[in-house]
Amino acid sequence: MCQLLGMNCNVPTDICFSFEGFHRRGGETDHHADGWGIGFFEDRGCRTFLDWQSSCKSPIAALVRNYPIKSTNVIAHIRKATVGQISLANTHPFMRELWGKYWLFAHNGDLKSLPALQSTRFTPVGTTDSEHAFCWLLESLASEFEQEPPADILAARLSELVAEIAALGTLNFLLSNGDWLVAHCATRLSYILRQAPFGQAHLVDNDMSVDFSGVTTPKDRVALIATVPLTDNEEWTAMQPGEFVIFRNGMPCLAHQSTLCETEVATV
Amino acid sequence: MCQLLGMNCNVPTDICFSFEGFHRRGGETDHHADGWGIGFFEDRGCRTFLDWQSSCKSPIAALVRNYPIKSTNVIAHIRKATVGQISLANTHPFMRELWGKYWLFAHNGDLKSLPALQSTRFTPVGTTDSEHAFCWLLESLASEFEQEPPADILAARLSELVAEIAALGTLNFLLSNGDWLVAHCATRLSYILRQAPFGQAHLVDNDMSVDFSGVTTPKDRVALIATVPLTDNEEWTAMQPGEFVIFRNGMPCLAHQSTLCETEVATV
Repeated sequence: MCQLLGMNCNVPTDICFSFEGFHRRGGETDHHADGWGIGFFEDRGCRTFLDWQSSCKSPIAALVRNYPIKSTNVIAHIRKATVGQISLANTHPFMRELWGKYWLFAHNGDLKSLPALQSTRFTPVGTTDSEHAFCWLLESLASEFEQEPPADILAARLSELVAEIAALGTLNFLLSNGDWLVAHCATRLSYILRQAPFGQAHLVDNDMSVDFSGVTTPKDRVALIATVPLTDNEEWTAMQPGEFVIFRNGMPCLAHQSTLCETEVATV
Repeated sequence: MCQLLGMNCNVPTDICFSFEGFHRRGGETDHHADGWGIGFFEDRGCRTFLDWQSSCKSPIAALVRNYPIKSTNVIAHIRKATVGQISLANTHPFMRELWGKYWLFAHNGDLKSLPALQSTRFTPVGTTDSEHAFCWLLESLASEFEQEPPADILAARLSELVAEIAALGTLNFLLSNGDWLVAHCATRLSYILRQAPFGQAHLVDNDMSVDFSGVTTPKDRVALIATVPLTDNEEWTAMQPGEFVIFRNGMPCLAHQSTLCETEVATV
């Protein structure tokens, strides 16, 4: 299996501290050593860093650990290959463009059967069930909506499609189009919300701490999502099997909530 | 304006030496300091490294200079912004997926008018004329061919589409789907073919040489394409305005040549 890491914030924030712990699970503190990747949204742009080497040895991971890219939506993945060989084409997160926005997707789990693609609009390049599932989700949305629908309608339809595909196997995943980040839990996924008053956090995978109060403003909000909690002195919320959460502006929203966390008032 | 760098080889080769010279034109030996990017095809996979910082200062460029990624098709770009602000979304090369393959595109020049997009299949994310031209090319191909046609048919149609869009402005560009690399010259583009017997090359932008005979085999072939020649002791071929060349297996092919350089016999 694999491990996932996601971040959604209301102001561009770097993920260096969390990635410092997470990347060690790719061959050092855990065995997810069959490649890794991370993608950052910056305004409408998106850049990914991918390597088929393990994240604990990859020079690209060393760069990402030390280069503070400020982003409002980040998705990272370390891979333990189950379906599809070790190769760059099978390295998550996968990226496509839909409605003039980039979309990123990373998956932990496996599908026992693959949903049929109805067209070649989104065609997998590699051989993973994960990229196939991503293509199916985008194809389904593209076939129903010529343009991007309002966020609440999109979220509601997405949650229905996810329920449909989740029945085919184990589907823990993170998905983002730069506006929001969706987390779906099948077996294991947790999140934490950091907001004022900020405190100190200590990594599980490395004896390292940071005091967020020194690097934040009182208005900052950061949601962090991970397969296994990254810190051992904070309270993470374990998601339930089948749970689908949309994070926007650093907080979780109900899929059918019409405002979709667009207000500045936290709902949690 | 901008500068382009491309590489097409018959065996996976790293571009570190050429990039060492090229990246200096992004703010040191030349003024193309409004972001840069590079993309590498590795088998079916593709990874890009993008930065809105100048390539002579970017930590990501420092990584690419020192991390020998072996690839058969590479496209790099340093930007001097003309159309579209400095941002990640406007940073070349642009990437899309068509027919289950990734495609990369980078452009130097500008279009006086933009060709109309007939659908939302490929929609620009940023605001450059370059990404718009790329989307138009892919949309045109996708609308005519449900699946990828044979290489000679694809190449012939592509050269017609390029002639059509090239009439709208200045279109020096590099395009690759990982199988081949297309170069189109509107005003300025040169290439060099390196094959046995390999010799020594000396960079224009940095007093640095390499002896390729020590790092190659007699069967290796590398085609290098650049806006301005990168070395000062080799003979580069200046492309002519309107010239469209497909490089495959490290050599240039005629667009209508049915074998498309699939044989091992060099045609040049």
